[in-house]
Amino acid sequence: MKINSNYNNLKDNYLFANVSQKMKDYKSDNPDVNIISLGIGDVTLPLAPTVVEAMKRAVMEMGNADTFRGYGEYQGYDFLQEAICGYYGQKGVALQSKEVFINDGAKSDLGNILDIFSEDNTVLIPDPVYPVYVDTNIMAGRKIIYINGNSENAFLPLPDQDIKSDIIYLCSPNNPTGAVYSAEQLELWVKYALENDAVIIYDSAYEIFIRDELLPTSIYQIRDARLCAIEFCSFSKMAGFTGTRCGYTVIPQELIRNGAALNKLWLRRQTTKFNGVPYIVQRGAEAVFTDGGMSQIKSDIDYYLNNARIITDTLETLDIWYTGGSNSPYIWLKCPNNMSSWEFFDFLLKEANIVGTPGAGFGTNGEGYFRLTAFADRENVITAMKKLAVTF
Amino acid sequence: MKINSNYNNLKDNYLFANVSQKMKDYKSDNPDVNIISLGIGDVTLPLAPTVVEAMKRAVMEMGNADTFRGYGEYQGYDFLQEAICGYYGQKGVALQSKEVFINDGAKSDLGNILDIFSEDNTVLIPDPVYPVYVDTNIMAGRKIIYINGNSENAFLPLPDQDIKSDIIYLCSPNNPTGAVYSAEQLELWVKYALENDAVIIYDSAYEIFIRDELLPTSIYQIRDARLCAIEFCSFSKMAGFTGTRCGYTVIPQELIRNGAALNKLWLRRQTTKFNGVPYIVQRGAEAVFTDGGMSQIKSDIDYYLNNARIITDTLETLDIWYTGGSNSPYIWLKCPNNMSSWEFFDFLLKEANIVGTPGAGFGTNGEGYFRLTAFADRENVITAMKKLAVTF
Repeated sequence: MKINSNYNNLKDNYLFANVSQKMKDYKSDNPDVNIISLGIGDVTLPLAPTVVEAMKRAVMEMGNADTFRGYGEYQGYDFLQEAICGYYGQKGVALQSKEVFINDGAKSDLGNILDIFSEDNTVLIPDPVYPVYVDTNIMAGRKIIYINGNSENAFLPLPDQDIKSDIIYLCSPNNPTGAVYSAEQLELWVKYALENDAVIIYDSAYEIFIRDELLPTSIYQIRDARLCAIEFCSFSKMAGFTGTRCGYTVIPQELIRNGAALNKLWLRRQTTKFNGVPYIVQRGAEAVFTDGGMSQIKSDIDYYLNNARIITDTLETLDIWYTGGSNSPYIWLKCPNNMSSWEFFDFLLKEANIVGTPGAGFGTNGEGYFRLTAFADRENVITAMKKLAVTF
Repeated sequence: MKINSNYNNLKDNYLFANVSQKMKDYKSDNPDVNIISLGIGDVTLPLAPTVVEAMKRAVMEMGNADTFRGYGEYQGYDFLQEAICGYYGQKGVALQSKEVFINDGAKSDLGNILDIFSEDNTVLIPDPVYPVYVDTNIMAGRKIIYINGNSENAFLPLPDQDIKSDIIYLCSPNNPTGAVYSAEQLELWVKYALENDAVIIYDSAYEIFIRDELLPTSIYQIRDARLCAIEFCSFSKMAGFTGTRCGYTVIPQELIRNGAALNKLWLRRQTTKFNGVPYIVQRGAEAVFTDGGMSQIKSDIDYYLNNARIITDTLETLDIWYTGGSNSPYIWLKCPNNMSSWEFFDFLLKEANIVGTPGAGFGTNGEGYFRLTAFADRENVITAMKKLAVTF
């Protein structure tokens, strides 16, 4: 018996554990200080009333013999697939139901999708990055090439024609940098992918935060993207589903590699290794797309975006360089006075009693940068920014 | 870009599609005939009232800012892990919370667990078998050795010392045969696994149907099983969760291979590729283990087991050989008059208007056998058996 030896190549990521330990230590030394966390990547507003009502109805149905539902469709219920197709229709993207796979969150499928690709493929991953892209490929033993995000390219790296790759990860609006690709930039990526016979793994989990109408909210708004991209989205940040678990993966019928339709391959994978998302949760997700649901959700996103603006207004006053914040819940700032990520973490905790996330935890290019998030309570955001403003 | 070429080695399984098509055709030719399905592997009774109430409360909590829950623990909420430990305590098995991983159903983890093992491992799989064991290993390119289940060993194959293997699949009570291993038989498997440095993948999804107190309901009731077995269980059949999606995987701390604790490896896999089960669903699963929940669930299982007895009583009257039915919802019978599985399917459909599942769909050794299930409505089971009785 041998274990998968690729696991030996994984680095333990102590980022959030270290953050939490330092916070605890400071709190224990300074019990009267009120620490405000702007480090959290989790939503805080409750589920929308429309969603709650839909789930309550679904729970009742499951308790009644006449309306009880057993195994659902592997790919998800028609009613939810169709609601998602309707949402894409509003973006000017025509999808078929069969192209939409309902899942238990974008993270699961972002890792699982790799099952259908050869382990010999070379992977292109931006740095800094959401650590899941890296770790899932290390687990499978794939070769990873990193492309640099930095202040010169505003953390929006573009394709390098000299690099050959097979699987390309893009996340826009980006976690952790909050940066958003323009249509022109995504066109370059689609062109590069087609030239390299590559597939783009497009993580659009934060698309709902985009308010600038010129910015793409789906890769399929880009010509020919259906020939080279798989899109992953989620109700986690869109509708507060981080603890309710629902997302979806879009694989266009035209996406063919090695003579195989990836949509069909993925369906084979899912029917073998997955059994669908709870009926109750799918009814909740469906309710997000009703008029009532969309208006409640828009108001929640407004709340978070206003938090982000309060943060970026302060950074501008202090003349601190940043990306994100206007079409994203993340604000990625350059640590002032050339502090390292962890130096600034300590400084911020001690001087302003704010906890954030050191950029170095997201990759080599994150050193010297820092992530703040817009998910905290409004009053706390205002208090934290007042403290930050007087720190300098 | 290359796809995972192992997918080319998968056989398309048309078993249930063929069953469904034949049923439709017959119905269309004989519109007045009432066909009764005893082929379905899905539960039919609704969720227990205690479970429904717990989920309704949880939905309400999620709609309230003060009680809302975002990301949960990767491994599941303590309250559910502890409830499961309590359930195992009643079986005389001591588990720690950290050994229990809550998942979205046994099927997902039965496939995903393979991530932590080398692709060079040799896999031992009984035939006939639940097709997922075979397909998930084909997808990873592993070598599979089949061991024969047949009427001589009552479809309970025992280890062959001449065969070396690394990963062993056991399912008891078995799907599709309904056969249940005795403690003595499982002791032989544990001994074989330890001698071969192998790991047993123990699927106990149907353990709740075991009423014979001498039969083991967990592999951990066998001495030293903690050194060689991972157990997979589910609320699907136990509590009607096929459409609600919750299960759990148990990995003892002592289970070490290649110097690595499998519990820790699996936790690393889960934190990277999974984000937990909906809070609402975990509250529903917790309610299964309350006094009210257990008594409601016991009554549902009684109902299914009584259906099974009505079926096996008829088979005995007709002198048809079978396994299962007494500690299992599945009845596996030898087709009368040396009919093949599909011949008997056609015979049963035409002569008794009953639909079942041809054993040949579960592997080579399933040819000449047939699966009936106990999940139908009582009245339908009685009608079907009356028709079957007069057919011969």
